[in-house]
Amino acid sequence: MNTHVDCIACVVNKANKLADKYFDDKHKKYTFMNKVLREIADIDYDRTAPFLVAKVMRILKDETGIDDFYSEEKSLFNKKLMSMERQIEDILDNSKDKFVTALKIAMAGNIIDFGALDEISFNLVEEIINKTLNSDFNEELCRILMDDLSKSKILLYLADNAGEIVFDKIFIKEIVREYPNVEVFFAVRGKPVLNDANEEDAYFVGINEYATIISNGTDLPGTDLLEVSDEFKEIFNKADVIISKGQGNFESLPGCRKNVYYLFLCKCDLLMKKFKSEKLSNIFIHESDL
Amino acid sequence: MNTHVDCIACVVNKANKLADKYFDDKHKKYTFMNKVLREIADIDYDRTAPFLVAKVMRILKDETGIDDFYSEEKSLFNKKLMSMERQIEDILDNSKDKFVTALKIAMAGNIIDFGALDEISFNLVEEIINKTLNSDFNEELCRILMDDLSKSKILLYLADNAGEIVFDKIFIKEIVREYPNVEVFFAVRGKPVLNDANEEDAYFVGINEYATIISNGTDLPGTDLLEVSDEFKEIFNKADVIISKGQGNFESLPGCRKNVYYLFLCKCDLLMKKFKSEKLSNIFIHESDL
Repeated sequence: MNTHVDCIACVVNKANKLADKYFDDKHKKYTFMNKVLREIADIDYDRTAPFLVAKVMRILKDETGIDDFYSEEKSLFNKKLMSMERQIEDILDNSKDKFVTALKIAMAGNIIDFGALDEISFNLVEEIINKTLNSDFNEELCRILMDDLSKSKILLYLADNAGEIVFDKIFIKEIVREYPNVEVFFAVRGKPVLNDANEEDAYFVGINEYATIISNGTDLPGTDLLEVSDEFKEIFNKADVIISKGQGNFESLPGCRKNVYYLFLCKCDLLMKKFKSEKLSNIFIHESDL
Repeated sequence: MNTHVDCIACVVNKANKLADKYFDDKHKKYTFMNKVLREIADIDYDRTAPFLVAKVMRILKDETGIDDFYSEEKSLFNKKLMSMERQIEDILDNSKDKFVTALKIAMAGNIIDFGALDEISFNLVEEIINKTLNSDFNEELCRILMDDLSKSKILLYLADNAGEIVFDKIFIKEIVREYPNVEVFFAVRGKPVLNDANEEDAYFVGINEYATIISNGTDLPGTDLLEVSDEFKEIFNKADVIISKGQGNFESLPGCRKNVYYLFLCKCDLLMKKFKSEKLSNIFIHESDL
């Protein structure tokens, strides 16, 4: 999806906020912002928003010497959500249609992007899950996915944020239980970028019990097929089904003509406009419907 | 005032909104945004926000062939406010301290930046004036200004927006009445930029009855001493008192070490933070207090 032009101002805003956070000195902020503007101006028109974000984050890494800006946040989210795993699974166990519920739980997990760490309680998480369980939902597409999985050998599951991957684990556990013949690959980012999950996050929450953890080989907060590693590309190409979590993957993958099911919460004006939906509304859509 | 670095993201946002308004075609938007990013990146660190805005507007003029984007809006504001002139003067005539009231009316006029043209009624204008009349105010600085004017020969009054200049006219009329020995120069922008007043706007509302209308010779939405014409500079240098209206002038002039009284409403996060004030709160401050 070509979102680049419409995403420029948003990425510059994000860079400005990061600059205010990491540079006390105005001259350092100037050097950073100047590099950001030049870098973004140099990027080809048809590149995606996650590509822009990665470029900005690389400059920020260079200028600050910090490699992982969200390591503390990611660790906290992983631990917090792991401490709630049993309670979230109870919601699943008490539901009628476990697959649908597990998918909706994974969808609700995409909310794990909010800033105020201290405020995450199980009550809040439960509230978000319940809201998602009761919201409008493409049941038909869910049936098509189930049918797909029943005939598939390889599922590639594209992760988004740390913390959120605990919800993904619950969904994947359910997939593996219902479709034991499917081999699941769980792809994370290759290097730290924003609060996106990396391999250590996936191992920490125990995804490896149900899936093979792989890296996409990049520091992009999305899945850009021009940038991913050959190892990732190989599994991407042979996957029968792909489940793609989060907005970053959605911003980079459409047009790939693969069997992709996108699952995310709408977090920016551009996508709200595209889907005629409100902020944080659930999107569950197939590549062929874009 | 060096606001450049902190203003970059804001100016890019403004450019993005203008691009969405004037370019249907994504490739044209790309060409424009790309030029904007490169131009801003090339600007020296110590230039001001109005300088950045002018550069963006020049690119927009080049790309669209439109010279005056707000001509309709400016004309409408001028006419609307002129139709209310008598009623606004009634407020002044019924006040105890006419000079203070006239200054506050001019201050309230800086609100004439709002988007919804159709909604301007006298009731709304009266409400804004009354709110300003009753708000906290630096009475002491007002007395200092009055004392200054009583001893001055030349007052330079720096205008901001079309429409707003009707409020300025009422204030200037009062200044001329109270201090008949002061010669008043009313400076507007040299070329169209945003909804800022130009010479034709000033003549349209009849400022020439009380002041000599001059142009600052630039297309900057502020008063940048590196850019203004020699004619303007001459009057600027010999003025005993300068009254500067609006945020654009405030963003470009501080540091000039002249006898400037700034009068504006706080319209951006940066200035709200600087003055620890809310959005649209009144600022009346002297150059020596910055």
